[in-house]
Amino acid sequence: MSRSNDPAAIVAAQSVVSASRYSFLGPAGTFTEAALLQVPGADQAERVPAGSVLTALNLVESGEVDAAMVPIENSVEGGVTATLDAISVAHELHILREELVEISFVLAAAAPLALEQIRTVSTHTHGWAQVRRWADSAIPEAEFVPASSTAAAARGLLEETPVADAAVCSPLVAQQLGLSVVQRGIEDVTGAVTRFVLVSRPGAIPPMTGADKTTIMIPLPQDRAGALMELLEHFATRGVNLCRIESRPTGDGLGLYYFSIDIEGHIEEARVADALAGIHRIAPGIRFLGSYPRADRKTQLLTAEVSDEAFTAAAAWISSLRHA
Amino acid sequence: MSRSNDPAAIVAAQSVVSASRYSFLGPAGTFTEAALLQVPGADQAERVPAGSVLTALNLVESGEVDAAMVPIENSVEGGVTATLDAISVAHELHILREELVEISFVLAAAAPLALEQIRTVSTHTHGWAQVRRWADSAIPEAEFVPASSTAAAARGLLEETPVADAAVCSPLVAQQLGLSVVQRGIEDVTGAVTRFVLVSRPGAIPPMTGADKTTIMIPLPQDRAGALMELLEHFATRGVNLCRIESRPTGDGLGLYYFSIDIEGHIEEARVADALAGIHRIAPGIRFLGSYPRADRKTQLLTAEVSDEAFTAAAAWISSLRHA
Amino acid sequence: MSRSNDPAAIVAAQSVVSASRYSFLGPAGTFTEAALLQVPGADQAERVPAGSVLTALNLVESGEVDAAMVPIENSVEGGVTATLDAISVAHELHILREELVEISFVLAAAAPLALEQIRTVSTHTHGWAQVRRWADSAIPEAEFVPASSTAAAARGLLEETPVADAAVCSPLVAQQLGLSVVQRGIEDVTGAVTRFVLVSRPGAIPPMTGADKTTIMIPLPQDRAGALMELLEHFATRGVNLCRIESRPTGDGLGLYYFSIDIEGHIEEARVADALAGIHRIAPGIRFLGSYPRADRKTQLLTAEVSDEAFTAAAAWISSLRHA
Amino acid sequence: MSRSNDPAAIVAAQSVVSASRYSFLGPAGTFTEAALLQVPGADQAERVPAGSVLTALNLVESGEVDAAMVPIENSVEGGVTATLDAISVAHELHILREELVEISFVLAAAAPLALEQIRTVSTHTHGWAQVRRWADSAIPEAEFVPASSTAAAARGLLEETPVADAAVCSPLVAQQLGLSVVQRGIEDVTGAVTRFVLVSRPGAIPPMTGADKTTIMIPLPQDRAGALMELLEHFATRGVNLCRIESRPTGDGLGLYYFSIDIEGHIEEARVADALAGIHRIAPGIRFLGSYPRADRKTQLLTAEVSDEAFTAAAAWISSLRHA
Repeated sequence: MSRSNDPAAIVAAQSVVSASRYSFLGPAGTFTEAALLQVPGADQAERVPAGSVLTALNLVESGEVDAAMVPIENSVEGGVTATLDAISVAHELHILREELVEISFVLAAAAPLALEQIRTVSTHTHGWAQVRRWADSAIPEAEFVPASSTAAAARGLLEETPVADAAVCSPLVAQQLGLSVVQRGIEDVTGAVTRFVLVSRPGAIPPMTGADKTTIMIPLPQDRAGALMELLEHFATRGVNLCRIESRPTGDGLGLYYFSIDIEGHIEEARVADALAGIHRIAPGIRFLGSYPRADRKTQLLTAEVSDEAFTAAAAWISSLRHA
Repeated sequence: MSRSNDPAAIVAAQSVVSASRYSFLGPAGTFTEAALLQVPGADQAERVPAGSVLTALNLVESGEVDAAMVPIENSVEGGVTATLDAISVAHELHILREELVEISFVLAAAAPLALEQIRTVSTHTHGWAQVRRWADSAIPEAEFVPASSTAAAARGLLEETPVADAAVCSPLVAQQLGLSVVQRGIEDVTGAVTRFVLVSRPGAIPPMTGADKTTIMIPLPQDRAGALMELLEHFATRGVNLCRIESRPTGDGLGLYYFSIDIEGHIEEARVADALAGIHRIAPGIRFLGSYPRADRKTQLLTAEVSDEAFTAAAAWISSLRHA
Repeated sequence: MSRSNDPAAIVAAQSVVSASRYSFLGPAGTFTEAALLQVPGADQAERVPAGSVLTALNLVESGEVDAAMVPIENSVEGGVTATLDAISVAHELHILREELVEISFVLAAAAPLALEQIRTVSTHTHGWAQVRRWADSAIPEAEFVPASSTAAAARGLLEETPVADAAVCSPLVAQQLGLSVVQRGIEDVTGAVTRFVLVSRPGAIPPMTGADKTTIMIPLPQDRAGALMELLEHFATRGVNLCRIESRPTGDGLGLYYFSIDIEGHIEEARVADALAGIHRIAPGIRFLGSYPRADRKTQLLTAEVSDEAFTAAAAWISSLRHA
Repeated sequence: MSRSNDPAAIVAAQSVVSASRYSFLGPAGTFTEAALLQVPGADQAERVPAGSVLTALNLVESGEVDAAMVPIENSVEGGVTATLDAISVAHELHILREELVEISFVLAAAAPLALEQIRTVSTHTHGWAQVRRWADSAIPEAEFVPASSTAAAARGLLEETPVADAAVCSPLVAQQLGLSVVQRGIEDVTGAVTRFVLVSRPGAIPPMTGADKTTIMIPLPQDRAGALMELLEHFATRGVNLCRIESRPTGDGLGLYYFSIDIEGHIEEARVADALAGIHRIAPGIRFLGSYPRADRKTQLLTAEVSDEAFTAAAAWISSLRHA
């Protein structure tokens, strides 16, 4: 079975997403807003910054916004595990879309400035950690002033009494605020990418594009050897690949945990639906958190035995036997 | 899910079997006919002895009889592997029923006789092998005269020139021919049981009784480590137990073989149907050879996760997600 | 790891076998004797025909002969299941060697004879079943006279009162007795091959040749779904292929059975030894029945991860960690 | 096999740890230092605060300190993923010990103060997120002043120009600095526990205590369905339970990732060593990151088939066969 990146399907998948009000992990100018701005139409929509991932998600659940963009992987402004736990356990939300954003920092100032003039630098502690080697070498004398986010640090430069001479922040916020960029690309590790997801209340699932991902949460029924293998057999016997797996304590007892898993494929594909149905039997508490286009557009080569055709043929065979 | 030996279902299962003409591995009086006579109504039906398992099956395929009783496991008159290969590969036949027959031998003569008077004993070589310890001790001087079956040996006693003084045969043939039983229960190993199956052309499947068995034939797609495991995972993930497994060369090439497998359960049960559908994807050449009541009436305790209810709930869940 | 058919090793493997007295499933001239005559030196050794597989094996156990040749697969003279059960359960014997013999029949007579002259034909019932199509066409009027073996039928032609005009038998016995061959190759299915094994008391194992087979018997600890899979995982995780698998009732209770298994490889290979050790933990009743050269000399392509080198490297790594 | 919490072994395990100089994720008074102070003798040892997890680990690698205490799970001061990646990929370090610390916050001030008097509160953004519900209710008017750590916020209260009226910090730092505790236990979720690990250069492994954990890093050889299952089979066939599993991108290419895994048991146990050796064959890049006592002292009930005795018996059996 060949699977392709069907352009029409990708457009259709995006139409599910179109919204007029979004929340995101703020303040304005964070990498999370940069992720949100990658969503077609989001630049024209209302964008509500939230003080935390939970607040951003609460705005969706209460209906005040249509969808929320939040970080799902290790990010500068944090919130990762919180996001995973929030959408897996606490909230009833679905993922509509994922976005990858390259994490690159600029050193910005209110006005043009030489590196030598900088005595104090403000940013989030995680942002600071990611430019430390550069800072030790380029501005060794500068003192670090912690801020609650990289965007807040940038904004602090414009206050009456600026919190610092310069800020380490995203290119986006520097541009939004009209700051002067002293130096670009100051991150110690280049090419780092963070993953964000757009979540909304359960509703229509973005149509299959041929390069999709499905996120699920599976509470493990028992804490014993082989329990995870039993789960994985359901994927393996249907040729379903894992993109990510994480065990997380459920927080409500001894030895109980859940698995947060991303798999390749869309719930409209027979092999994915069949695998999830199999797991539902052994873990009825399984939660479907969304099928959505992969940001990296990677497709998977499927063998004949896990094609939709193979599932259809198998079902027809059983039916013919039962109704002979 | 509780499963019981539903008497009404057992009766219903038998009604599928009711036939007016049967073939069996003959001649008259073999253990195979004894198995056939255990089928309700067979004592009133026409019973056609066949010279070999293949002949018995051919009579079914050609429509000359409705069903054939043949040995499926190690038996006195042989034919086991032949039966398995015949119904798995060559013929398009279904198993309707299985019968267990206790293999017990009598020493019979045309007229009352003392053991000391016996100089020659006729029987099938396999029958002779099963009473050798008794014969060595009870009639050490008697000479063995081979016959083509235990029943033929019995019949030979009544010829004008009898082939021997006595015959080792089934209680059935001794009774049918009105022979005098010199000694009963002369088998060296008591309690041995042989399994026979009743096969017919594909048609209605005997209804589920709560203690059923399903026989399948699976050509292995590839000769490599793990290929069998891949098959078995489909059973294990649905809680389907094996009763019997045998690998057999297909006879048409190097390294190619098929698996003959009996599993617990009936194709009307969701877990059985789901497992067979899964295997159909990886081995589309799989052949269904019948679902039928177990002769031993053993039931299996099913866990909740493989009950029909669990399959129904899982399918409903997937459907609710897809049509949100 | 490259594995080859090392000629020196093959010679060495044969030297383990060299014996001066053999038993075999007789009488003289059976296909079993033909298999025995394929063993280097056996034509010069004493060959003791036995009336049954069990008798042949008893002669080995008691020390009266050094080794016994018996059929292990479907054969004309039977004995297959008996052999498997005998060496798996009852006896403490090891397989030293396997032989493949092509099953081809001749129609033989005491003196040159035309087909038209033949009124009666003697042979074993199983032999008769294998030439029936030919007989129906070539000698349709001939009557079948059962014999206890094909060889006995041949010998019966030379008696004072011959049992029949001709016999269906092996080319070997026709040659041994100086019979006249009326027609060669009369078997209905050509190319059929039967497998025989040479067994002896436990002792030195034939050295590895690069194309070997290991036979084991594993009593299944529990009758439940997944029990067999648990066994097979031990093979699969070491890349050990199966050549044959059969479940057999142990005969001592309800629902208890054992698996008779042939695997590719020799116990001197790390992957085989490691797999058997793993199974020994879950089924301590496992019995090793021999590692011996494959008759078909087929070699297996091993991946790096299951080579002896990989096992040695892994053990060295663990040792280095433990003794840091 | 019974396994117990052997007090002598626990003492022995601690002796491996005894060190005179430690680094930890600073500054002084963090929860990480609280974890360090749970190590016997650490209160008397030199404790060097480090600005980041990487700095703390670098101090160990360079030999400036003997061991470092760093957070390994979701923590107030962050660093989790960094820690995992650091010890899994970048550094050659072993875990000697794990510590669980209950995360409870106090509201502290330089001098006794009523809640009503508080206008500004300083703390780390993650700390602030964990007391937000309490703050919204108890000090709704107070403004949040971000700090680079909870301990830095506490220290800021004592500066000439205090950064805020009060600080949200650990009980430890409040005590160390002699601050006045306005309110205890202000965390929104009580009972939260964070896990920390003590790492050092590879050397002696803490002896087995009967309730141990082993941490490993496994680069996945191939990105395909079943690859993880193949790994897990090695644990399952030895009855080795998982405590935690996380897939992480290796950061050096497309689709390549590693698994960070904690398993139950100690490398001195046969089942653990055998499983790791098995995985070494398929993933030679596997890294052992330490066997150490479990902080929760939970023991595992082992079945006979995975006891050290079972492994010893299996090895003895193989040896007896090979040297017959």
